[in-house]
Amino acid sequence: MIRLGRIGYVNCYPVYGAMDRGVVAAPATLVTGTPNELNDRLADGRLDVSVISAVAYAQHAERFELLPDLAISSDGPVRSVLLFARRPLQELDGARVLVSTSSRTSVQLLEELARSKWSLRLELAPAPAEPGDLKRLAATEHDAVLVIGDAALLLSSGGAYPVVIDLGEEWKRWTGLPFVFAVWAARRDVDRATVRDVHKALLASRKWGLANIPLLAEQAARATDVDVGDCAEYLAGLDYGLSYRHLAGLTDFLRRLAARGVVPDGTLAFLGAA
Amino acid sequence: MIRLGRIGYVNCYPVYGAMDRGVVAAPATLVTGTPNELNDRLADGRLDVSVISAVAYAQHAERFELLPDLAISSDGPVRSVLLFARRPLQELDGARVLVSTSSRTSVQLLEELARSKWSLRLELAPAPAEPGDLKRLAATEHDAVLVIGDAALLLSSGGAYPVVIDLGEEWKRWTGLPFVFAVWAARRDVDRATVRDVHKALLASRKWGLANIPLLAEQAARATDVDVGDCAEYLAGLDYGLSYRHLAGLTDFLRRLAARGVVPDGTLAFLGAA
Repeated sequence: MIRLGRIGYVNCYPVYGAMDRGVVAAPATLVTGTPNELNDRLADGRLDVSVISAVAYAQHAERFELLPDLAISSDGPVRSVLLFARRPLQELDGARVLVSTSSRTSVQLLEELARSKWSLRLELAPAPAEPGDLKRLAATEHDAVLVIGDAALLLSSGGAYPVVIDLGEEWKRWTGLPFVFAVWAARRDVDRATVRDVHKALLASRKWGLANIPLLAEQAARATDVDVGDCAEYLAGLDYGLSYRHLAGLTDFLRRLAARGVVPDGTLAFLGAA
Repeated sequence: MIRLGRIGYVNCYPVYGAMDRGVVAAPATLVTGTPNELNDRLADGRLDVSVISAVAYAQHAERFELLPDLAISSDGPVRSVLLFARRPLQELDGARVLVSTSSRTSVQLLEELARSKWSLRLELAPAPAEPGDLKRLAATEHDAVLVIGDAALLLSSGGAYPVVIDLGEEWKRWTGLPFVFAVWAARRDVDRATVRDVHKALLASRKWGLANIPLLAEQAARATDVDVGDCAEYLAGLDYGLSYRHLAGLTDFLRRLAARGVVPDGTLAFLGAA
């Protein structure tokens, strides 16, 4: 049985919800983790296929093939990749910013926006920022903090920070493009026919998920303690395709990272048609 | 023996030069044409693998797979996709513009720049514009004319128009990205192992070509009657890779065309690794 990674966050419900309910047969053993845990596990062979962050793909592109037509993006506000700040953006130059250890792509997006769009120097310091970490986080000295996923939904519903900046929205304003946070990739040493079966199951599961957002929003509200209406709006604002617009956003981001030497310059390699 | 398309223009010398000279064994029967002839032949099965225009790929993406790491782009002026005009750009609103029948991507690039960047309405009329057509073209009533390839190099060296607009340069100024004019694609019904061999041969031939630009510039000067220094500069300004920057330019262009309904919204499908 091959091992298929999933992010435990609400943002993955639309892709895995039908598998969770047995509506679509899970073609693999499901392994849950934060984006960064999945990144590491797919790179070192503990997973065979997984959703991983866009930056993690580019860091080890030679080991991976992308699954076509599947990604997690936003074309505007994403609502779950948020910079919470104690003062306005323009007053954050030189500020100490805690950044979630769960994420790689969001941290690079923040870095890119700070340098190239906002012209701010930020002093980034990694900090655990899952829902269970939020209390300790509040007690840690900081000017701002980057939080992702369910913890971001939760923290934003609390209203504890005067300034909240949505990185998906900032990217869209800057480039006019969607931002691709995560992609699905397979290790190249995994049997292709099996990967194609997993891909088909993921697409079938997503089809069911997108047709059942209200049900998934209820599940999300129970899991996160966030209002069900907010959860529904959140899920409806995410995009799970990977067409030209998304590819334009993804490669525009990666060429910026490659120019700064954060990832090797490379190309997108997709699983070929059967 | 499979059939491999090549554009007869100077811009393809760096990719096919080593095959022409027997330095790299041609893995297929070479068929020469204008971009549009090759587009049609690959789509209808008269060719198996070919360089085709970016728009032609997107029009029939479901029939094709892209060859990785190979394209014809410019990251700034391209010198061979030129709008020749009798008056300045800002005076061309409503103008009758002849456009080369050899090209599909350049015409769409002109259309996109006119609509979205220049805010001009242009009345486009197709006209043959290969080197042998230039005399007749000069005698045809027009305010401006879009010419590509060797004919553009020739016409620009003549200095017959007061205004010459380089569409590669305009795109770069507008988007900050390279513009991908052509890609290499294979029909999906062609044996993959054979396509991989052709791809390898093309990459080996390109490697030789890029190391022998002065020689290819001499050949280009003889073929076009354009100064050898200009030919060398022209070839050195073209780019034959397909990394993130190029993909960003390509997909940014295609998402614009998809939004206008010129091509179906789709994705990039590449020949997979062996």
